[in-house]
Amino acid sequence: MSDIRIDAAFDSGNIEVLSVNGATATLAIPKDTHSEFKQWFHFRVAGAAGRELELRITGLEESAYPGGWPDYDACVSEDRDYWGRAPSSYDRDIEGGTLTIRYTPASDIAWFAYFAPYSMERHHDLIAEAAASEGVDHVHLGTTLDGQPLDALEMGDGEYKVWLYARQHPGETQAEWWMEGALEVLTDPADSVGRELRKRCRLHLVPNCNPDGSKRGNLRVNAAGTNLNREWADPTPEKSPEVLAIRNRMDETGVDFAMDVHGDEAIPVAFLAGYEGIPAWTDAHGDRYYRYEAILDRRTPDFQTEFGYTNAAPGKANLAMSTNQVAERFGATAMTLEMPYKDNKANPEPEQGWSPERCKMLARDCLAALLEFLDTAEG
Amino acid sequence: MSDIRIDAAFDSGNIEVLSVNGATATLAIPKDTHSEFKQWFHFRVAGAAGRELELRITGLEESAYPGGWPDYDACVSEDRDYWGRAPSSYDRDIEGGTLTIRYTPASDIAWFAYFAPYSMERHHDLIAEAAASEGVDHVHLGTTLDGQPLDALEMGDGEYKVWLYARQHPGETQAEWWMEGALEVLTDPADSVGRELRKRCRLHLVPNCNPDGSKRGNLRVNAAGTNLNREWADPTPEKSPEVLAIRNRMDETGVDFAMDVHGDEAIPVAFLAGYEGIPAWTDAHGDRYYRYEAILDRRTPDFQTEFGYTNAAPGKANLAMSTNQVAERFGATAMTLEMPYKDNKANPEPEQGWSPERCKMLARDCLAALLEFLDTAEG
Amino acid sequence: MSDIRIDAAFDSGNIEVLSVNGATATLAIPKDTHSEFKQWFHFRVAGAAGRELELRITGLEESAYPGGWPDYDACVSEDRDYWGRAPSSYDRDIEGGTLTIRYTPASDIAWFAYFAPYSMERHHDLIAEAAASEGVDHVHLGTTLDGQPLDALEMGDGEYKVWLYARQHPGETQAEWWMEGALEVLTDPADSVGRELRKRCRLHLVPNCNPDGSKRGNLRVNAAGTNLNREWADPTPEKSPEVLAIRNRMDETGVDFAMDVHGDEAIPVAFLAGYEGIPAWTDAHGDRYYRYEAILDRRTPDFQTEFGYTNAAPGKANLAMSTNQVAERFGATAMTLEMPYKDNKANPEPEQGWSPERCKMLARDCLAALLEFLDTAEG
Amino acid sequence: MSDIRIDAAFDSGNIEVLSVNGATATLAIPKDTHSEFKQWFHFRVAGAAGRELELRITGLEESAYPGGWPDYDACVSEDRDYWGRAPSSYDRDIEGGTLTIRYTPASDIAWFAYFAPYSMERHHDLIAEAAASEGVDHVHLGTTLDGQPLDALEMGDGEYKVWLYARQHPGETQAEWWMEGALEVLTDPADSVGRELRKRCRLHLVPNCNPDGSKRGNLRVNAAGTNLNREWADPTPEKSPEVLAIRNRMDETGVDFAMDVHGDEAIPVAFLAGYEGIPAWTDAHGDRYYRYEAILDRRTPDFQTEFGYTNAAPGKANLAMSTNQVAERFGATAMTLEMPYKDNKANPEPEQGWSPERCKMLARDCLAALLEFLDTAEG
Ligand SMILES: [Ca+2]
Ligand SMILES: [Ca+2]
Ligand SMILES: [Ca+2]
Ligand SMILES: [Ca+2]
Repeated sequence: MSDIRIDAAFDSGNIEVLSVNGATATLAIPKDTHSEFKQWFHFRVAGAAGRELELRITGLEESAYPGGWPDYDACVSEDRDYWGRAPSSYDRDIEGGTLTIRYTPASDIAWFAYFAPYSMERHHDLIAEAAASEGVDHVHLGTTLDGQPLDALEMGDGEYKVWLYARQHPGETQAEWWMEGALEVLTDPADSVGRELRKRCRLHLVPNCNPDGSKRGNLRVNAAGTNLNREWADPTPEKSPEVLAIRNRMDETGVDFAMDVHGDEAIPVAFLAGYEGIPAWTDAHGDRYYRYEAILDRRTPDFQTEFGYTNAAPGKANLAMSTNQVAERFGATAMTLEMPYKDNKANPEPEQGWSPERCKMLARDCLAALLEFLDTAEG
Repeated sequence: MSDIRIDAAFDSGNIEVLSVNGATATLAIPKDTHSEFKQWFHFRVAGAAGRELELRITGLEESAYPGGWPDYDACVSEDRDYWGRAPSSYDRDIEGGTLTIRYTPASDIAWFAYFAPYSMERHHDLIAEAAASEGVDHVHLGTTLDGQPLDALEMGDGEYKVWLYARQHPGETQAEWWMEGALEVLTDPADSVGRELRKRCRLHLVPNCNPDGSKRGNLRVNAAGTNLNREWADPTPEKSPEVLAIRNRMDETGVDFAMDVHGDEAIPVAFLAGYEGIPAWTDAHGDRYYRYEAILDRRTPDFQTEFGYTNAAPGKANLAMSTNQVAERFGATAMTLEMPYKDNKANPEPEQGWSPERCKMLARDCLAALLEFLDTAEG
Repeated sequence: MSDIRIDAAFDSGNIEVLSVNGATATLAIPKDTHSEFKQWFHFRVAGAAGRELELRITGLEESAYPGGWPDYDACVSEDRDYWGRAPSSYDRDIEGGTLTIRYTPASDIAWFAYFAPYSMERHHDLIAEAAASEGVDHVHLGTTLDGQPLDALEMGDGEYKVWLYARQHPGETQAEWWMEGALEVLTDPADSVGRELRKRCRLHLVPNCNPDGSKRGNLRVNAAGTNLNREWADPTPEKSPEVLAIRNRMDETGVDFAMDVHGDEAIPVAFLAGYEGIPAWTDAHGDRYYRYEAILDRRTPDFQTEFGYTNAAPGKANLAMSTNQVAERFGATAMTLEMPYKDNKANPEPEQGWSPERCKMLARDCLAALLEFLDTAEG
Repeated sequence: MSDIRIDAAFDSGNIEVLSVNGATATLAIPKDTHSEFKQWFHFRVAGAAGRELELRITGLEESAYPGGWPDYDACVSEDRDYWGRAPSSYDRDIEGGTLTIRYTPASDIAWFAYFAPYSMERHHDLIAEAAASEGVDHVHLGTTLDGQPLDALEMGDGEYKVWLYARQHPGETQAEWWMEGALEVLTDPADSVGRELRKRCRLHLVPNCNPDGSKRGNLRVNAAGTNLNREWADPTPEKSPEVLAIRNRMDETGVDFAMDVHGDEAIPVAFLAGYEGIPAWTDAHGDRYYRYEAILDRRTPDFQTEFGYTNAAPGKANLAMSTNQVAERFGATAMTLEMPYKDNKANPEPEQGWSPERCKMLARDCLAALLEFLDTAEG
């Protein structure tokens, strides 16, 4: 039979084909733009119907997070809508670290990705639909280095200022799926959580903070090779216009509550990270964050507090990171939400693992937790 | 112009036309089968495009719940999918109590109902879809007096026995909308609440306890004129075969947790009623119910505990009612969920009021509250 | 294992259960209301998952069309949306003529019918959607003996008067599926055939001429036991108010072109029947019909002219039948469209046979043929 | 109020912003890649809700087809799904030829394009869905200069070799909408035309012959600036790898019938162009094309033969154009289908004009005409 054909010249496509032999391919992940990071992959396999594909992604010990590969199964779709998992195994000792994906498609075409992709076309569908909803304002925050618009959506008539922003790291597509779920809550007139939040808050959402990295198929950086979540202390028009535009808008609006939405390559569960170690830290300030975290933990099995990052020591917080900067600069209850690429072992979903659907449901829980947090605030 | 035409000979249709003059109609609500209850209405108006309809439903001081009409706006739909509200006003002193509905349809046809209807066709769609889901068993509990099947759905691999049942009172269609929401949670593999509940529980759902009353357009009774929620002490094949079949199945399975889902005509909010006054009452038993109620209250603005029914005095509980019987008979944490026909004033939705969408979301919250209740049970 | 459970107490349900043993059932078809006709069946089987059902429908040599059973496969659905076929065989010598259906459902519930049902709920959805379309008028033609409305839809600004009406015989559900296809053409602003027909014609559609028989699960008659297509010479309010209402409206509007839509139990292809033998017959009049028939034949493989009914001899036409009456009374180009229950052998579809989808597509072809017919009329 | 914001950095985006003042913008169309052609535009306007936009596209006397602008209304969408028309007027004497578009969006965001866009993401959805259909083979024909795959779909078990290919000129997006309609016919098992064509033919479809031009927002050329429909005599890997790959595959399969699908900027109707003037011309060969054209004309008001291109004189056909080359090389019945950007005046659709929906319906008619053409071929 003929060799399979592998393509990646599309929105967020990213793979290098080293060799193909029948239904077996040896692959590598190209580096992010002007950067050493590499982890995100997204490609299409043609000529695949009924053949057991063996897709070997090599050189992964040099990837950004080698710890992401053990216990990871690749995402696969034949209809570009439902994303399941293809059994995968990692061997750090073969060809610089090799993830071997095995899968037998029913169709002639199958799509593989590190996580279910969220294209710029879908982004524009999301923005158009939300902008057309009653009471939603679109704000054009600025223009990226590749000339794309940086879109924000604002809504609500309350005093409490909420900022939700996602996908500073473009390969963490979980974050924009989360945004889709959040916008469903906030724009549905029948949703009592959305209705109540719009009464109490002014909400500012940036569904995609890094459109250039998204389209280019990067894991972590923008078109200039900048990791945006290390730019919040001193963003510049040359390296990080996205952060500059967002932070400027925050300066105009103020921030009481902020959630920066991410994916984590290694840890197989959803968790939050706070702002321990900022100069302005007080226990009263920090307790607000811990209280929110506890509420969210109680509300859903898809969130937990056992696993997560190590806290910074007092005074050692990195103010170049968004959560720390926003907590310090605005006194906000700020946090980084991390969702897994893998599945959580306590409550696994064998067919899909962590999935777009679960990202969207976690967004529902995060907003309902926010309402409970506001409801139960001390007087 | 010609007179409008009013019809009700369809699933759950119920109206009597006293007179029609142009776009104005004087109407009355027929009594339930073999019964004095009357409250449910459902009819179609034709010849309506662009005309201000004035629909006067008279004789309502004799209805089952005259307190249901003040502050009530009738439900209306032109596409039979989206149900909005038509401004309505009640005057107890006109023609024995008259609700006047005013509405100007864009289409030639408009449908009016006491609450968004849930037809037996939709019931069968619901049952078919759920029965086709992975891990769901259909149970044919028995046959009604009109020869319809009484359908139950069962799922889950756990020890804890949960019974959810709805629409003993057929005109309380909120209850079957709630079931649709509950089944979405319980049959979606991506839903972590559903997945976790199926692990811990065996769940038994009866989406419609009264198919005959539903098809006939009754508010409260079955084909024999029986109020099923007064039959739980001594159900009979002649008067209440539906209750007999359900209670028998409960006797086979046991019950740890039970929710009987209803609508309340007068009180404009969602609330729970428990089993105070049963012979087997203990504070420990009752506290389980109060704990669940508090969790649900905390989780959603669409549920509250301020308004509701007066508790029965010690030893005075009516064991013919489902919740009391089940709490007494099985020692279960049992409850009656009531949803409004009106809207709650604290968090209103002006276009739709209380709606099918909100019934479904409340079901999601009830199940998530059940998981939290189980998670936080004392050792 | 337990016995399967069979139910039919729903819209258009019709079956008698003689006996059940495990997954095997012996059944019979109840007669139509006040009538000897019997052919339509529609029932639900529960307790079915993974079991090979053997469903034996007996006594069929006494059915209305015994010739309908050889080469016929029963319609089956598990989701009530997609209707496939279950392999069936007919033996005229067993138990008065027995159709044996074999099928192994994946789900616990499966639905069987003579053809894909079209419920009154779906009818009302169809009417509501069409009535809400730009330029469509709903006409309430009258009320049936069971109190249901007889719905017509009218549209178009032209001189040429077109009448399309369906389901005089309620068990010929193909006819209302056809109507759904026709209304899609006629209400879609992007459809150039619909747009052009609305310019040249005034169109009158009666999607269901026999709602009472439809709901009751009859093959051929209404609530009084009347075969409506034998009532067009002298319809009466007592026996055939449906025909009386339609014919009266035709008298008001006039008729240039009429199609009466049916299903045929025995002949496995779609065909037309005309009005040979009416007193007013002229070759010029008849040629209009033959010209339409030839156009339709040329346009689609799902229509043919080889098989069909024998023509009436000159002067022998039955004027109690709609097509003859309308051709005679109005000088209209009139015809009866027959669609099969079986599949056509020349162009079969193995999974579904003749299906709702094909009824709808044939409606598209019939309307496009009408436009071509009008386009190519001689000066 | 603030200035509107205009963006075009997305799939097929193309506009240059000369100036913006409030809700008025002065614009120009950038040239195609390495080319003088310019005509296609596609951009997003933000900050638009409730404001009367005045969008002035200047310099159009230098566009590829200045005759395209009179009587043209720009395409507009607020939800990126339904594309209507914005009233537009052309004045050749202002700023080198100016099209002025006026439109007041309800939403904050509106999208404008020369015709409804067809993104590469939608292309991949189309390919994935078709490739997953029963009996469809995907063929990877080759790789474009920008590294994109050139996708073909093949199906059918017959002898007669049909080639359908579209969008050599990428800004003629009508052509890929047409392909979507054609694939619906050919992959739907219930469609009798598709089923019959698959029996008689082997069909080869190339839904997008120019992916690079499509993504880049070109009107007529690929990434090298080549007009592909002038390359069929001598395609080269450097300038026209797309044509080379397609023609090579045609050489392998042979071609009996070919349709090359396009849009025409100036002529406001759909029409065909044939292969008059090829060296191999015979009247018998040409009559096959004329016969097909007449069938299609008869079948739909959305096709006509009155308006179109002037035929080439004998021996003067340009063999670098696809239709001529294919007719000459393979003796095929070949043709170019042209669809308008404007609306046809004989049968206009005021809201949408010529639209994606009409492209898809014309594809249905083209395939049904092909079947009729085959059915009625002389022995
Ligand atoms: Ca948790
Ligand atoms: Ca509450
Ligand atoms: Ca034919
Ligand atoms: Ca034509």
